[in-house]
Amino acid sequence: MRAGIISIGTELLLGEVVDTNASYLASQLPLVGLDLQTVTVVSDRIQSLAEAFEQAWQRFDIVLATGGLGPTQDDLTREAIAQLLGEQMTVSPELERDLRAMFAAMGWTMSPTNLKQATLVPSAHAIPNPRGTAPGWWVEKNGKLIVAMPGPPAEMQRMWEVEVMPRLRARVPGDVVLLRTLKCFGLGEAEVGEKAGPVFAMGNPTLGVYAKPDGIHLRLIARASDQEKATGLIAEAESKLRSTLTDRIWGTGSDTLETMVGQLLSAKHLTLATMESCTGGLLASMITDVPGSSAYFKGGFVAYTNEMKASLGVDDRLIDKHGAVSREAAQAMAQAARRQLGADIGLAVTGVAGPDPLEGKPPGLVYIGLADSKGARSVEGRYPPRRVDVKRRAAVHALFVLREKLLSLPG
Amino acid sequence: MRAGIISIGTELLLGEVVDTNASYLASQLPLVGLDLQTVTVVSDRIQSLAEAFEQAWQRFDIVLATGGLGPTQDDLTREAIAQLLGEQMTVSPELERDLRAMFAAMGWTMSPTNLKQATLVPSAHAIPNPRGTAPGWWVEKNGKLIVAMPGPPAEMQRMWEVEVMPRLRARVPGDVVLLRTLKCFGLGEAEVGEKAGPVFAMGNPTLGVYAKPDGIHLRLIARASDQEKATGLIAEAESKLRSTLTDRIWGTGSDTLETMVGQLLSAKHLTLATMESCTGGLLASMITDVPGSSAYFKGGFVAYTNEMKASLGVDDRLIDKHGAVSREAAQAMAQAARRQLGADIGLAVTGVAGPDPLEGKPPGLVYIGLADSKGARSVEGRYPPRRVDVKRRAAVHALFVLREKLLSLPG
Repeated sequence: MRAGIISIGTELLLGEVVDTNASYLASQLPLVGLDLQTVTVVSDRIQSLAEAFEQAWQRFDIVLATGGLGPTQDDLTREAIAQLLGEQMTVSPELERDLRAMFAAMGWTMSPTNLKQATLVPSAHAIPNPRGTAPGWWVEKNGKLIVAMPGPPAEMQRMWEVEVMPRLRARVPGDVVLLRTLKCFGLGEAEVGEKAGPVFAMGNPTLGVYAKPDGIHLRLIARASDQEKATGLIAEAESKLRSTLTDRIWGTGSDTLETMVGQLLSAKHLTLATMESCTGGLLASMITDVPGSSAYFKGGFVAYTNEMKASLGVDDRLIDKHGAVSREAAQAMAQAARRQLGADIGLAVTGVAGPDPLEGKPPGLVYIGLADSKGARSVEGRYPPRRVDVKRRAAVHALFVLREKLLSLPG
Repeated sequence: MRAGIISIGTELLLGEVVDTNASYLASQLPLVGLDLQTVTVVSDRIQSLAEAFEQAWQRFDIVLATGGLGPTQDDLTREAIAQLLGEQMTVSPELERDLRAMFAAMGWTMSPTNLKQATLVPSAHAIPNPRGTAPGWWVEKNGKLIVAMPGPPAEMQRMWEVEVMPRLRARVPGDVVLLRTLKCFGLGEAEVGEKAGPVFAMGNPTLGVYAKPDGIHLRLIARASDQEKATGLIAEAESKLRSTLTDRIWGTGSDTLETMVGQLLSAKHLTLATMESCTGGLLASMITDVPGSSAYFKGGFVAYTNEMKASLGVDDRLIDKHGAVSREAAQAMAQAARRQLGADIGLAVTGVAGPDPLEGKPPGLVYIGLADSKGARSVEGRYPPRRVDVKRRAAVHALFVLREKLLSLPG
């Protein structure tokens, strides 16, 4: 079945909001057998909206829309759908009750304009949205379907996963499409592309190679008449990729380095402490993005000055001799972190985030230190010198180094 | 002049990459007098690409494309443009020399496939890209223009700002369009929308209200025949907004709370130290995203356990009595942070990031502590309970609280 996506909001055409929703939904559609024809980005003027819905309604079986369900005057998705269908919007007493209960629970004041978020038209059912104040609309008429979802990604994604996808999967026939992403670290995009040559040649699955903050991603998409065939195609391609990329592949699908490191620490009953200078807390923040990380993360130090490093037990003669940006400092910081917090493993990052050089060392030069009861070692990283990217890459690199260490340990 | 944007890459239609480029470019086009007609997202199959370029070439004066300039087999933007123009791609000796020099400087290995990034067609000039290996293409033929830029946002944005925008501004006539964004914190989207009612009624400028991680943004767009008129329209609207939203407005344009806090600390010759539990390092990381932050940021503690808090001087009897998630703990943490690091101001965050409750307190409940030599105070925050959002909102809230404090100080 043919589907179109409409991303709504002048903000999307003015760069104030990034349209994560269209790409998220686009990634999901093959999995329910929908064939995505276009993504159209429209402003929230009622004429533009009405035109976009009119066109999509004529061309596609299913129209997925995101955005424009907020409470303000520039939120006009409901109005555009009502106009397309020639139906009248009215406030639903149940929706109004739910909305008032949500505001009361959060201790927030409900504005009169929020009432608009409790409206429906006769062809629409509300789609629950526990993460926000805007329910979605599920609209069926003349054998066609419009699904309107809220713009905030966390609200939209939950609504898609829990409410919309299961219903669509039940009603759409078609080929099986399987998607598999392998993630690797420590090689350039071109190098990965070359090593993946034999898989490019397969054609099905298709292969895409993408540079991401956490390394290079390889995306396989297989199409087949049934699940077993599609699974076989993916397995064959994955096996080829693993044979050439070997231990550079650290994860698949929605794996993140911080989640995998957390699983390894938990499985091996080990605890972790960090000391960071150039990453400035980002490493600890990534580690603590994982629910339950308090079980293995003992804490961290953002040791932005040499005085703080010294007060935590990093020998200041060592820093005088080698500089704060050095293998020696990274190792001493990792040791100090684990000693201070009584952790099994200490992980440290020191480097030059930029834009200016430090100690005569260039932006993008980073040392990662790793220590346990047996000693410490360090790894050098060099990244293109853009401050926030250096921070991100250094933190990812540190997690990759930690992961390799954890894999090498027994238990 | 009419413009179209083509965002290239199967990854955009499969959710593996978020299309930040289209919205970024869309935001820039009014500023050079271009009238954006559509954003089209296409896969990197050569047929889809060729079709998209063919259509855009026929309909628009200027086509801006992003993506598909990488070194791998699935990067086909150059090929599609060459096909559209009926021209031959050849390796440019100058581009090859630059590319080899860049790889040598980074200490990376250059793959043979990278050579593709040194090709041109007769109608194309290369656009420099110091941030990556893919130069852009500036293609002029038959009075029309194609600008092809790389997909990685940092590369594309620099290319746009430094290379493309100035050249476009010089050749495009038209109305003056001014854009102004006000940022506020501490009010809901609907509440802001209501207070902004009189400005919605103005029509020109148009007003958009958007919920963002750092609060609510109000975006004004004014169109007029000259700069002075457009500036006057913006000023009138801004004055209305400031009169109703008062001190909730904390910044404009590209201001971030971390940058503004940094400027205030520098101007008042004050230093800062942090102690975080639920934000897990994110607060320190935001503070250190600002170049030069080492001048005022003395460092931070990610005190994820009560033991670590106690070892840093947070009275454990106080935590026994009130809990680690309490006003009292937040204040004691802020005091401990400034004492430990000899800073003028201590800023602390403690709370429940979730997904599980802690000490019987719900996810999303956060206390922010602020201390200086005169004493400490605390602020309560309650946010929708999603772990990464709680972390982000709590860190932003802490920066907002710090900003208010700094504004109230003399100097």
